[in-house]
Amino acid sequence: MQIAIVLYDRFTALDAVGPYETLGRLRDSQTVFVAERPGPVRTDTGNLALTADRSLADVPHPDIVVVPGGPGERAQLDNETLLDWLRTADADSTWTTSVCTGSLLLAAAGLLTGRRATSHWLALDALKGFGAEPTGERVVTDGKYVTAAGVSSGIDMGLTLLGRIAGDEHAQAVQLLTEYDPQPPYDAGSPQKAPAHLVERFRDGSRFTPA
Amino acid sequence: MQIAIVLYDRFTALDAVGPYETLGRLRDSQTVFVAERPGPVRTDTGNLALTADRSLADVPHPDIVVVPGGPGERAQLDNETLLDWLRTADADSTWTTSVCTGSLLLAAAGLLTGRRATSHWLALDALKGFGAEPTGERVVTDGKYVTAAGVSSGIDMGLTLLGRIAGDEHAQAVQLLTEYDPQPPYDAGSPQKAPAHLVERFRDGSRFTPA
Repeated sequence: MQIAIVLYDRFTALDAVGPYETLGRLRDSQTVFVAERPGPVRTDTGNLALTADRSLADVPHPDIVVVPGGPGERAQLDNETLLDWLRTADADSTWTTSVCTGSLLLAAAGLLTGRRATSHWLALDALKGFGAEPTGERVVTDGKYVTAAGVSSGIDMGLTLLGRIAGDEHAQAVQLLTEYDPQPPYDAGSPQKAPAHLVERFRDGSRFTPA
Repeated sequence: MQIAIVLYDRFTALDAVGPYETLGRLRDSQTVFVAERPGPVRTDTGNLALTADRSLADVPHPDIVVVPGGPGERAQLDNETLLDWLRTADADSTWTTSVCTGSLLLAAAGLLTGRRATSHWLALDALKGFGAEPTGERVVTDGKYVTAAGVSSGIDMGLTLLGRIAGDEHAQAVQLLTEYDPQPPYDAGSPQKAPAHLVERFRDGSRFTPA
């Protein structure tokens, strides 16, 4: 199986690395990082670059498509080269997936119309605006479309899909080797759990708010 | 504050990206990825490269040192350039930290002797061999040394240290924006929780077993 993880300027690193580190441990698979042009692609902070080893054109028919999110997603919403690639790749993919605002790109390409899907909690309204049916779940599967909530949820998505493809035992082995036994020091990881004034602050004008 | 995240050939990506995505959101800080030589550094799978923007020599006195782990750690245990840099950086650092088998590099540099520390669950004996006192905890703080268990635990370490430095509210805001509300599909993330036969299989000959 070929797994293509799509990079673009100002994506969020963990959105891409979560699925890479879990789903990418699928046996007999090859993960390839792709972008419009090969080479280093800067993340949203500007402090890190991940290398896209291949161009989108070089990898037209991956078995699994993974689209991360991030503040740079907004600038891609009218990038027809990327949207066309998503449509073409999706036509033959076994699974088409996203993390965070990556789902807005799938939706902008017309792939999530009428489908249950999710995104970063600040982007659920925008996702609805693109014709999808947002849910509050962390990982949403609708047919071959698997979307995850914000940033870190790509780890849960990766393990979920890994289990679906390779079986529970393989996914558990990957969970064990990545020692994914989360113990966050706070319980503020969702708008339902975080202090209300923080939620409001970001709803009122977060830099993470998508288009 | 300057945060230096150290890269070396065949490190594990999530070890580095977890702290980057959390601790790296510290206000008025600059995160810089460093390696012996600047340029792309390949991860353990070979399918991804992260860019080291600066050489170790360019960044001699970071305020926070972050050392990820990974299978490539073994080859660094006698890399005196790296070990000397760790000792020099540590002499002036405010915090010296590691994820996964990164703690073996700190220990090999002599920085964890007699200190409580942790590492990947398969590396705790090796850590003891270097003179540290391994604990089974996910994040261990001993003075200015903060070590984390395997791979994904760098997220918990990053949030913990972020809260310590910038206060609970800032760390909670980062947890909320990264939507770190973990919902793993399995409960197999530690040797105490995973199926026993998986634990034994890896204890008997994992490629993750450190030196």
